[in-house]
Amino acid sequence: QSTVQLYGLVDLSAGRYQDPGAKSMTKMQPGGMTTSYWGLRGKEDLGGGLSAVFAAEGFFLADTGASGRFNGDAFFARNAYVGLSSASLGTVQLGRNTTLLFVSTIVYNAFGDSYTFSPTVRHVFLPSAITAPVTGDSGWSDSVLYTSPKLGGFKASVLAAAGEKVGHRNVSAGLNYDVGNFSAVAVYQDVEKDISTALKVDDTRTWQLGATYDFGVVKVFAQHTQVENRSVAGSPKSKLSDVSAAIPLGNGKVLAAYGLLNRPGSADQKTFSLGYDYFLSKRTDVYVAAMSDKDEAKATYTTAKSYGVGIRHRF
Amino acid sequence: QSTVQLYGLVDLSAGRYQDPGAKSMTKMQPGGMTTSYWGLRGKEDLGGGLSAVFAAEGFFLADTGASGRFNGDAFFARNAYVGLSSASLGTVQLGRNTTLLFVSTIVYNAFGDSYTFSPTVRHVFLPSAITAPVTGDSGWSDSVLYTSPKLGGFKASVLAAAGEKVGHRNVSAGLNYDVGNFSAVAVYQDVEKDISTALKVDDTRTWQLGATYDFGVVKVFAQHTQVENRSVAGSPKSKLSDVSAAIPLGNGKVLAAYGLLNRPGSADQKTFSLGYDYFLSKRTDVYVAAMSDKDEAKATYTTAKSYGVGIRHRF
Amino acid sequence: QSTVQLYGLVDLSAGRYQDPGAKSMTKMQPGGMTTSYWGLRGKEDLGGGLSAVFAAEGFFLADTGASGRFNGDAFFARNAYVGLSSASLGTVQLGRNTTLLFVSTIVYNAFGDSYTFSPTVRHVFLPSAITAPVTGDSGWSDSVLYTSPKLGGFKASVLAAAGEKVGHRNVSAGLNYDVGNFSAVAVYQDVEKDISTALKVDDTRTWQLGATYDFGVVKVFAQHTQVENRSVAGSPKSKLSDVSAAIPLGNGKVLAAYGLLNRPGSADQKTFSLGYDYFLSKRTDVYVAAMSDKDEAKATYTTAKSYGVGIRHRF
Repeated sequence: QSTVQLYGLVDLSAGRYQDPGAKSMTKMQPGGMTTSYWGLRGKEDLGGGLSAVFAAEGFFLADTGASGRFNGDAFFARNAYVGLSSASLGTVQLGRNTTLLFVSTIVYNAFGDSYTFSPTVRHVFLPSAITAPVTGDSGWSDSVLYTSPKLGGFKASVLAAAGEKVGHRNVSAGLNYDVGNFSAVAVYQDVEKDISTALKVDDTRTWQLGATYDFGVVKVFAQHTQVENRSVAGSPKSKLSDVSAAIPLGNGKVLAAYGLLNRPGSADQKTFSLGYDYFLSKRTDVYVAAMSDKDEAKATYTTAKSYGVGIRHRF
Repeated sequence: QSTVQLYGLVDLSAGRYQDPGAKSMTKMQPGGMTTSYWGLRGKEDLGGGLSAVFAAEGFFLADTGASGRFNGDAFFARNAYVGLSSASLGTVQLGRNTTLLFVSTIVYNAFGDSYTFSPTVRHVFLPSAITAPVTGDSGWSDSVLYTSPKLGGFKASVLAAAGEKVGHRNVSAGLNYDVGNFSAVAVYQDVEKDISTALKVDDTRTWQLGATYDFGVVKVFAQHTQVENRSVAGSPKSKLSDVSAAIPLGNGKVLAAYGLLNRPGSADQKTFSLGYDYFLSKRTDVYVAAMSDKDEAKATYTTAKSYGVGIRHRF
Repeated sequence: QSTVQLYGLVDLSAGRYQDPGAKSMTKMQPGGMTTSYWGLRGKEDLGGGLSAVFAAEGFFLADTGASGRFNGDAFFARNAYVGLSSASLGTVQLGRNTTLLFVSTIVYNAFGDSYTFSPTVRHVFLPSAITAPVTGDSGWSDSVLYTSPKLGGFKASVLAAAGEKVGHRNVSAGLNYDVGNFSAVAVYQDVEKDISTALKVDDTRTWQLGATYDFGVVKVFAQHTQVENRSVAGSPKSKLSDVSAAIPLGNGKVLAAYGLLNRPGSADQKTFSLGYDYFLSKRTDVYVAAMSDKDEAKATYTTAKSYGVGIRHRF
């Protein structure tokens, strides 16, 4: 009992929000910077460098108090795993694991995991905003995740999810490299199992490269993603690019990001975000951000404009 | 992690329960005195008198273990907010906040927040029991709550909820006054947004005045509520009055309450409750209560009689 | 706040799983040994040997993160009660309580509460696997549980659930005897209220006898159950027998179990399981198990074969 941790994050913003092709709305927006969640986790020392690990984490929407990210989302959809971790051999986690692609997408851009303001998170993961989405959600059920120990700055990961007659299995592999102020990642994933009805394709192969360098006066991020939609003839490939920066200023950071979604056979989506994130403490920050989201494939409201102020608290 | 609190309350009673117009049932009644809940909350000292605050609290029915107050209730429907609190400037909370009207209704009557035995809670908030209910639930999603610091016994509060195309916005304001053994409240609310399908009206304006005085041998409570239903012609006004008392006796209190619901163009509802609440400790009490609930608008079972025994435990 | 405990268990296995009459599937199986759960509980000392007790515990499926054992299961379906416990007079719990029959079934067999590998748990409680199931679930809502103190090795329990117009009331009684290395139980239950639509009968009377003796080199278990289905003509009686053993070996135990389900007017089901459960610590174990599940009433896939490896962690 003494070993279990109870933790989470609450993030709420208010402002004017708009998606391309739709009218704007003045509203309270949950998760302006990070989707709110709470969870239980623990690590038990088994001796000899071995530990047992577990986590059960669920999302919630702090504007209404609803659990999950959407109606019907699993209660512990963020993570639900149990596994063994060895200092020398790496970690194995069984259950529902966050995907390597989601982690690389959010780590290698200045707006992190913001579905509201991060161009790359919106382009890669937001089903309603794009026509060539990555399939398979940001977490995979029925999966096994292996993460190697760090070796000379390198860390490798493999994730596989059983098909279980919903479809075929999913597989993913990633390589991280960290040295000094530089960090880079390469991730591949093949999704052939997707139970989401909100997404239009169910067989995608995705590559992503990301890198970041911290110059001190500015931390720069870049990532490039290619999504091959193998469920339609010709297997068209979407190309997604994102550059961003975080510039320390006072107790906070100026955040800027530009993302380009190049769709095969259709017009581009070009998204630019600018914000300032001020830290009241390590655990609590307030932020203001604005985004211009131009989808040239839309007939009306081509350029959506959003802006909001919010507060994020970790517990 | 060390700062988050895990807390709640479990309340169950058993007895014979009846609503006007319906047959009685012998059953286990969850939340005889207080609707059961559990939650997470925290307060982080940010220095300079400023704190970050958050809460995520969900109701549950302890007789079946179901979450929420009813099927489809949001998981953290009791409260889900994040905000900033200043000793000198007051507190701002964003998210889902308990309404000022609900707080004033339960504080200024002897049976507190009992949906089972409190005449005023049943008259003001129970949708199935009355024909002119307050709309908008006891908590508002998408809302901002501001609470002032205390100034010479006075405290002011403002609550507003964004319409978000479900309807128009909701607004509420309240003023509390506390001095010695006397306490009083005035609350106004205008609801134009109501997603509840159980309620029949969607545009109500409500005034409430409440007061209490503790004489030592008895604490007396009184409240008066007026609900204007603006969704029908003529905007009829219901008038709800409640007087109640708590009389210390042994380690407990005798509770008595009378509530009158005066409906425009229809017969009255008159509800009388009597109980004894015995405290085994500060955190645990057992109670016995009986209620006569006479709704003169019903053709059969006009006078419903309920009685039960229960236990309530805070953790 | 300091008194509430946060605890639970995560169990996941992977392998090939099959039910009689169906094809096998390679998959991740949640709860290979124990259905995963988490919960809150507390005990408050009220003085004079009296305590207040409560629990709110929910199941979850760690392969997907979904709450409950199945879609629509109550959130705190494992336990949701509040009560009083006296060292001399026994314990009373109101709410949703685990049944006496479920506890006796899982304590008196070597595979415990495994719905995946325990023959008796599958025969007595798995609705899809058998034609004469016990009705009423493993927990009863709207119930009162009384458990006596231990007297000369004996302990008695009574459980009753209000019908609440879903059906008639349920009642159950049990007697436990423990002395030295020997332990035995007798349980009776009469279910006349069953809201489960997955089950085919709604009026069953069940007797169960169970015993275990720990010889040191081997702990042997035996149990016999008779289920009378009173919802069909003639009230046919199913007879379920189970013998099992746990043999300490290294830091683990070899587990073996055989269960026979004798159905009136139909063919038998014969289930044999063998496993090895290795404890990495008191709180964490890894296991491998195989089961042959022969249902002679099935036309195809009469003998189902399952095997898997898993990990279980208590927190």
